[in-house]
Amino acid sequence: MIRAKKIKASIIGASGYTGAELVRLLIHHPNVEIVSLIAERSAGHDIEEVYSHFRDAELPRIISLEEASWKGVDVAFCCLPHATTQDVITSLPNHLKIIDLSADFRLKDIETYATWYGHEHKAPKLQESAVYGLPELYRKEIKKASLVACPGCYPTSALLPLAPLLKAVLIQDSDIIIDAKSGVTGAGRSLKQKMLFCETNEGVTAYGVCKHRHIPEMEQVLSECAGDDITVNFSPQLIPMSRGIISTIYVKLAADNTALDIESALRKYYEKEPFVTILEHGALPSTRDVHGTNKCHISVVEGRTPGRVVLVSVIDNLTKGSSGQAVQNMNLMFGLDEKAGLHLTPVFP
Amino acid sequence: MIRAKKIKASIIGASGYTGAELVRLLIHHPNVEIVSLIAERSAGHDIEEVYSHFRDAELPRIISLEEASWKGVDVAFCCLPHATTQDVITSLPNHLKIIDLSADFRLKDIETYATWYGHEHKAPKLQESAVYGLPELYRKEIKKASLVACPGCYPTSALLPLAPLLKAVLIQDSDIIIDAKSGVTGAGRSLKQKMLFCETNEGVTAYGVCKHRHIPEMEQVLSECAGDDITVNFSPQLIPMSRGIISTIYVKLAADNTALDIESALRKYYEKEPFVTILEHGALPSTRDVHGTNKCHISVVEGRTPGRVVLVSVIDNLTKGSSGQAVQNMNLMFGLDEKAGLHLTPVFP
Amino acid sequence: MIRAKKIKASIIGASGYTGAELVRLLIHHPNVEIVSLIAERSAGHDIEEVYSHFRDAELPRIISLEEASWKGVDVAFCCLPHATTQDVITSLPNHLKIIDLSADFRLKDIETYATWYGHEHKAPKLQESAVYGLPELYRKEIKKASLVACPGCYPTSALLPLAPLLKAVLIQDSDIIIDAKSGVTGAGRSLKQKMLFCETNEGVTAYGVCKHRHIPEMEQVLSECAGDDITVNFSPQLIPMSRGIISTIYVKLAADNTALDIESALRKYYEKEPFVTILEHGALPSTRDVHGTNKCHISVVEGRTPGRVVLVSVIDNLTKGSSGQAVQNMNLMFGLDEKAGLHLTPVFP
Amino acid sequence: MIRAKKIKASIIGASGYTGAELVRLLIHHPNVEIVSLIAERSAGHDIEEVYSHFRDAELPRIISLEEASWKGVDVAFCCLPHATTQDVITSLPNHLKIIDLSADFRLKDIETYATWYGHEHKAPKLQESAVYGLPELYRKEIKKASLVACPGCYPTSALLPLAPLLKAVLIQDSDIIIDAKSGVTGAGRSLKQKMLFCETNEGVTAYGVCKHRHIPEMEQVLSECAGDDITVNFSPQLIPMSRGIISTIYVKLAADNTALDIESALRKYYEKEPFVTILEHGALPSTRDVHGTNKCHISVVEGRTPGRVVLVSVIDNLTKGSSGQAVQNMNLMFGLDEKAGLHLTPVFP
Repeated sequence: MIRAKKIKASIIGASGYTGAELVRLLIHHPNVEIVSLIAERSAGHDIEEVYSHFRDAELPRIISLEEASWKGVDVAFCCLPHATTQDVITSLPNHLKIIDLSADFRLKDIETYATWYGHEHKAPKLQESAVYGLPELYRKEIKKASLVACPGCYPTSALLPLAPLLKAVLIQDSDIIIDAKSGVTGAGRSLKQKMLFCETNEGVTAYGVCKHRHIPEMEQVLSECAGDDITVNFSPQLIPMSRGIISTIYVKLAADNTALDIESALRKYYEKEPFVTILEHGALPSTRDVHGTNKCHISVVEGRTPGRVVLVSVIDNLTKGSSGQAVQNMNLMFGLDEKAGLHLTPVFP
Repeated sequence: MIRAKKIKASIIGASGYTGAELVRLLIHHPNVEIVSLIAERSAGHDIEEVYSHFRDAELPRIISLEEASWKGVDVAFCCLPHATTQDVITSLPNHLKIIDLSADFRLKDIETYATWYGHEHKAPKLQESAVYGLPELYRKEIKKASLVACPGCYPTSALLPLAPLLKAVLIQDSDIIIDAKSGVTGAGRSLKQKMLFCETNEGVTAYGVCKHRHIPEMEQVLSECAGDDITVNFSPQLIPMSRGIISTIYVKLAADNTALDIESALRKYYEKEPFVTILEHGALPSTRDVHGTNKCHISVVEGRTPGRVVLVSVIDNLTKGSSGQAVQNMNLMFGLDEKAGLHLTPVFP
Repeated sequence: MIRAKKIKASIIGASGYTGAELVRLLIHHPNVEIVSLIAERSAGHDIEEVYSHFRDAELPRIISLEEASWKGVDVAFCCLPHATTQDVITSLPNHLKIIDLSADFRLKDIETYATWYGHEHKAPKLQESAVYGLPELYRKEIKKASLVACPGCYPTSALLPLAPLLKAVLIQDSDIIIDAKSGVTGAGRSLKQKMLFCETNEGVTAYGVCKHRHIPEMEQVLSECAGDDITVNFSPQLIPMSRGIISTIYVKLAADNTALDIESALRKYYEKEPFVTILEHGALPSTRDVHGTNKCHISVVEGRTPGRVVLVSVIDNLTKGSSGQAVQNMNLMFGLDEKAGLHLTPVFP
Repeated sequence: MIRAKKIKASIIGASGYTGAELVRLLIHHPNVEIVSLIAERSAGHDIEEVYSHFRDAELPRIISLEEASWKGVDVAFCCLPHATTQDVITSLPNHLKIIDLSADFRLKDIETYATWYGHEHKAPKLQESAVYGLPELYRKEIKKASLVACPGCYPTSALLPLAPLLKAVLIQDSDIIIDAKSGVTGAGRSLKQKMLFCETNEGVTAYGVCKHRHIPEMEQVLSECAGDDITVNFSPQLIPMSRGIISTIYVKLAADNTALDIESALRKYYEKEPFVTILEHGALPSTRDVHGTNKCHISVVEGRTPGRVVLVSVIDNLTKGSSGQAVQNMNLMFGLDEKAGLHLTPVFP
């Protein structure tokens, strides 16, 4: 695809990890130019002062939101803390396409949002127009959207294996168990004692079991797929690595399907999807194989008890679980090749 | 407790990680003297040549099994690879108490052993006399045993929360799901490409899902507790740290119990147990808190779907999951204080 | 050694890493009872709320300095941030022996202190009475001291190999180069972006090259040993592990000594020292071998250029580099066995 | 630059880490096609069976050397263990350009080779035609070469800061000290107990101090630059991370130069070099900033003793220290843009 002009992109919240990951991806995107980097606290600084690994890149100086000019800008990526995009977004001009990486516009039900996030939603009108940015499920809607809410990292890893199976009624919609393990970047760059190297190194901790804020998001999409209210048991765990999520998911077969039926159905559903791979039968996935890429790898294993099947999926939480998916959404919104800028190979070892 | 004489202990297979962990624990045990370290390939060497962190300890030189004298020796710890103890044990004198850390004598059913380990059992007679060395379940039997088979690390982490609940029929005996994550020491010191630093660092991998050899061992004990045949779905995962296992276990309540009933029952069952702690309600465990100790920490969380409860347990796979439990068993077999040599505090951070 | 009464110890600043390490060591010390844990921000909380790995220990509740009673207390360990002990100490009763783990009383010259720490010393009188707590050099003085300033971690690792050589004029006092690498606990538990897991993982960074505040401390002691003003080139580097320091030190032989002479001299000097080991010729040290222990391991290697010798030393920065050395000092100050409570074996792997 | 045809490249020794890194780089190289992957033990397998992170790439099946056809192949990268390329190379056709990543052709003096590698060189004639592949020093020669010997990783990190200074006689050629720390990939993928995760995690070890085989290579090039025989003191250390080398180098100023003169000289020398950056004055480098890239970052710090200067350099040992540099050499040998395929941004965090 050849475009006369590059898409002009702005990153709001460039100083966090999802912002930095976007910068990494957009630097090499053939159809995009980063025109502004916005971050309140680091305004006035070079991005390399905030992220020294960008020392060798040519990037605009960081500015504050107030300083930003939106003329000619095509898209803004919002990489702000939760509850902040809702505020900021109302001040942005209408012509801008918005890709939000926070949780602000993911939940369709404003009351569910208030319950889980502890405050009223500040832009309920805009919420209505937001499209949930999981291209493998909502590609058509994303193409036409002007506000896309990128899924959370855990939901991405769980929805990709589960959604097609629920849609096709191949599994039961009750008693779904999602046991997930994440690297530490999921917690972002803010200063929390628990995220210090010495507190996270050499150990694994369970947290937010059946209480994590990504739960309503998963349940919303799964319910939509199943045409029924779905509740999940979700247990996240923090493991000593920077990137990656593995979700091990326990489901029950519907009717007299087998694990192989499930595997075939997923293989067929994702046959033409560029970013989802169903592994060869018998293989199990590793986050290393999707490190720094926009891929999701999925395995299906027959359980030992009748009717149980184990799905295992891996993604890089910062890429397919966040900024990579945001770029994929941008590609769709602007009619680009969906894979543009996302031909990535893991750096291993 | 004052004993006139120290127990004389021999470690067979001193060059592996469980052997080294035993050395670490026995060095400081007030009632034990290590009289011989046995390892075929390192025979003739000082242990510090095999493990430089023992440089400052005073320990006997490593010898081969052939060179070993058993006169006056009270107990032999067998830290050999699976299938090896069966061979070695027949050559040992009768007066020796044997504590085996391998899988050789864990499975009561010889055919189950053959199915999972791929060869006939070589000492079926001795198998009959072996006691499964989980003191919290089989303390009475262990005290009188002359051959104790220490549980595997995964089984230890799963059985401690599950067994009392099944015995008391507080949970259903069907559809038990055990999602476990282990540090790399679980794989031992043998040379495997997958265990190289660069292959294990910065990533998590599922392996042996519903196929791991620790499954029959768990099912055997759980079935015994439930008085019924139990099958479990078990998914192990390898995470980038040296020590520790976290098992997240999904069970269904029996009758109209609640998660709090479960928690109370566990708290009561383990009230006087020195090595099992049920965490305060709402807290979730971390392997860091049991690192290098013989402890198991357990949490109970109410599920989001009716009747589901999540149990989370952590142990150090090399200590409570192996060598620490072996010492605990020795203490019982010799009438010592069960805690002797096991007053350990984690080295954190 | 049998004492009728246990030493009653208070830890001021119990919520930092050196405080926690002291707790770990004193819990198992046969002659010590921890009578109070003091920390302003966590006052009123159980230590297990601050450090969950102490969940299974029995320890007093944390109090504020104001709440502390000093009656019957024998010793206070000050684990406060730099510049704070100077304030606090003046309010403590005279009968208390003080062991300070901060930099506050290490520098004899008040002006040097002001230059490197950026403010006037607040307790210059007390400074005069402070003894530098490196037992291998100042054992006699420590035994009589009532205020001991424990050395910094980097200085400990550098002084142990260097001091005896300078005292015996076996090496030149010019052009000493100390290249040191430390684990992350050296930075303490305070919230700094650079110390987040994701910022420290999978990378090594140089920092404070020839500017680090441990420099004047090293130069002070080395100058004293040499009877001459010594200036060193010191380069610290931060590596992705929790504990441990390796210092690789480049010195020049004095007169016609050889590397072997140096090695013999060190071996002789440390022959009876319980915590310093000169490795067998040809062996090189690893921090893993002193992890969690009060030991220092030292190697001597002949350089490739005439007269150059490389000294390599390793310690655990939190133990011999801080809290372990503090306990060693306490043992000396109270006439206990110097090794009491310090019979430690590394937890490996 | 537009070439009608892509360069056809073969990788001999594709199953090692440097082979895998070459695959990663060449997959995205605009002017190269990988036509064969050669590895004896994995012949007949897909590369994804050897490196699962290449699952999503389209690559030729691995073949044995015997099966390889060289017709139409332009360049062969030899990623074989030391001493093997010498054997293999004699069987390759003359038209092939060879880029060797082993140590086989780095040392000009056959006797030095024999001394350090323990056997006679097997292809001394070819050795004479080999060019040392450090483009920043030997670009002109590399362009015309048909056999390029890529530098070792440690030498690359040390030569880049040192060579220009010696050439310009800005530093003394005596008493150069190189203290280097490397990630574990430097040891390759072969099975060594010391490289197991649990043996390398959470610790740092010195090894090969003043004995490492990269020493003669550094001394050869430095001597050439200085026009005089140079001997260096070199201390490598292994740190718990996968990639990256930091070399901290202590040199003495020649005449009355200052550290700033040195910094200016380096800045000037590397002004137009695409892969070497002299950091802004006062900044210190981190391996994270060059992770996965072909860059070298260098800092200059004034020492505390008169005339001493500290140079700190970082590279990724697998990229600029090996396979990236190999691609850079290929670009030069084939008249391509030197940066082709090497526009890389670190994956951080």
